[in-house]
Amino acid sequence: MNRVYNFSAGPSMLPEEVLKIARDEMLDWHGSGMSVMEMSHRSKWFEEIIKKAEADLRELMNIPSNYKVLFLQGGAHMQFSMVPLNLMKKGKADYVNTGVWSKKAISEARKYGKVNVIASSEESNFTCIPELDPKTFSRNADYFYITTNNTIYGTRFTKLPDTGNVPLVADMSSNILSEVIDVSKFGLIFAGAQKNMGPAGVVIVIIRDDLITDTNPEVPTMLQYKIHAENGSMYNTPPCFSIYMCGLVFEWLKKHGGISRIQKINEEKAAILYDFLDNSELFKGTVEKKDRSLMNVPFVTGDKELDAKFVKEAAEKGLVNLKGHRSVGGMRASIYNAMPVEGVKALVAFMKEFEAENK
Amino acid sequence: MNRVYNFSAGPSMLPEEVLKIARDEMLDWHGSGMSVMEMSHRSKWFEEIIKKAEADLRELMNIPSNYKVLFLQGGAHMQFSMVPLNLMKKGKADYVNTGVWSKKAISEARKYGKVNVIASSEESNFTCIPELDPKTFSRNADYFYITTNNTIYGTRFTKLPDTGNVPLVADMSSNILSEVIDVSKFGLIFAGAQKNMGPAGVVIVIIRDDLITDTNPEVPTMLQYKIHAENGSMYNTPPCFSIYMCGLVFEWLKKHGGISRIQKINEEKAAILYDFLDNSELFKGTVEKKDRSLMNVPFVTGDKELDAKFVKEAAEKGLVNLKGHRSVGGMRASIYNAMPVEGVKALVAFMKEFEAENK
Repeated sequence: MNRVYNFSAGPSMLPEEVLKIARDEMLDWHGSGMSVMEMSHRSKWFEEIIKKAEADLRELMNIPSNYKVLFLQGGAHMQFSMVPLNLMKKGKADYVNTGVWSKKAISEARKYGKVNVIASSEESNFTCIPELDPKTFSRNADYFYITTNNTIYGTRFTKLPDTGNVPLVADMSSNILSEVIDVSKFGLIFAGAQKNMGPAGVVIVIIRDDLITDTNPEVPTMLQYKIHAENGSMYNTPPCFSIYMCGLVFEWLKKHGGISRIQKINEEKAAILYDFLDNSELFKGTVEKKDRSLMNVPFVTGDKELDAKFVKEAAEKGLVNLKGHRSVGGMRASIYNAMPVEGVKALVAFMKEFEAENK
Repeated sequence: MNRVYNFSAGPSMLPEEVLKIARDEMLDWHGSGMSVMEMSHRSKWFEEIIKKAEADLRELMNIPSNYKVLFLQGGAHMQFSMVPLNLMKKGKADYVNTGVWSKKAISEARKYGKVNVIASSEESNFTCIPELDPKTFSRNADYFYITTNNTIYGTRFTKLPDTGNVPLVADMSSNILSEVIDVSKFGLIFAGAQKNMGPAGVVIVIIRDDLITDTNPEVPTMLQYKIHAENGSMYNTPPCFSIYMCGLVFEWLKKHGGISRIQKINEEKAAILYDFLDNSELFKGTVEKKDRSLMNVPFVTGDKELDAKFVKEAAEKGLVNLKGHRSVGGMRASIYNAMPVEGVKALVAFMKEFEAENK
């Protein structure tokens, strides 16, 4: 077996320790005589698995008791609809446009109410987080929506807007659990699992109790937060195995020191890569320094053929999935929690080698 | 390791051969250096996995080329909404009420149009499939909806209604792949994976091309069949690992002779159990003989305490999850494709033993 360093933007690397546990428990979970995939979701075993996953996530993120944690399906995309369908009571919301995912969220929300795009970095191809002027925020908006980390462009919010009484809603798919955040500053946080938590197929929603209300009855039952909250994410059969995998990742994070510890490691990993980029004569980062992501690091040589050569040769060295998103070009290294420091060091070592040969 | 015979109604038993492959490939799929869970859904590897899964399903079910196969999220519950949101063009559909799942489907459909419940077996607590009189079918309905197998009650449609030009829509969650069916008789088939195909978290939709049309634009993008069909189930990140597991189950089915062979085995398993029930002085089946399911076999002793004793003692012998659904009581043995004949024989042997001791 020859494991690679996988820089995929998502689905992405999982901790090897976690995969080994999943492997070893595949045919018989804790003496149950069955795989987690074979368990009734109403069994005492699965109940233990989902309750432990939730408790560990609450502990890791220090989630206040007036927030519910939901394990749902449909990924962030389904949340782009569920957020307005559940939260747009007065029919008005503020959105910040920081890339493809914000735009999709805006487009879905426009089906259900008035969307005020209060700032956008589209003119600079999303290479920064736009300045936010509180004077432009709508009064009495139902919520204020941001994407805390932008996977494609490699930007992140380093400080949160002060939205007063307007609930802050955040798509945190690509940086949840990567740095310490104050959950109490948010009304609702959602995140697809497949970057920092587990396999694709489960999306986690952290929602403040007062935002869980009746919807218009025409909203599909499966898209109502209240239904899922009242049923402990068991209104229908949940994606049990994906939740189990998330739980194993949460245990792994706890064992290795929790979020404050992984944040230090993430800062270290990002610094290794950004420091190299800032001093390279061949490679350069594409994002304004103040807004750089800790998770996704896009970079270019400025020469498309050289970019392609780099991606190809890196893959031959076991550094895979470094091709950038088509809307940015060049390369992108996604260095989520599960990417070890050694992986980033191996990448930078290869970049140095490549630079020496090709500059 | 001590594997049990798991009679759970779903999630349920998977073939041990399949679980062993998943275990062995957990850290490195086919030399890729990564788990299927870690692969980009846009990678050549995952593309190979999803295309092979679809091709194998098409071969197994002999799906005509004018049908699309979609791998979606949200289970059968999400389909209860997607079917009317996409197919109710004229605003009228016929439903047959054969249990809890039909009722939920009816309730969702009523949000979007006129539902004509043309027959119901509710008065007999769903112990049969009601007679259908074609004279009661609506003219010009958008579709005609049935649940081909009723997991809770243990009934199934042994012959399909002739709905003429009205597309027949079927929830086949608990009997897909268990017997040979003629897909061309249906407009749309859907099935949650967690009974006969794989882990919970993926639902398969087989839809005839002419039923894939534009919806009302207010329908959430994620609930539009057309979007998923146009994007080959990759509009958003699909539940990759669950699709991979389904693919392994499809391979296993092909290797062991396909649907006609598994149907024979299923008939054999069901006959062993029903023959015993028909001759038992203690146990009896709860369903009208003509409508008996091959997959779910509810039975009772008529004495609640004895039922509970049976379930407990069976579990001690490694025959687990035999407790019936609360709405039927007693016991239920779900004997899906992955339940070997030996499992059913072991169950009947224990039932004989229990009967001798308790009658």
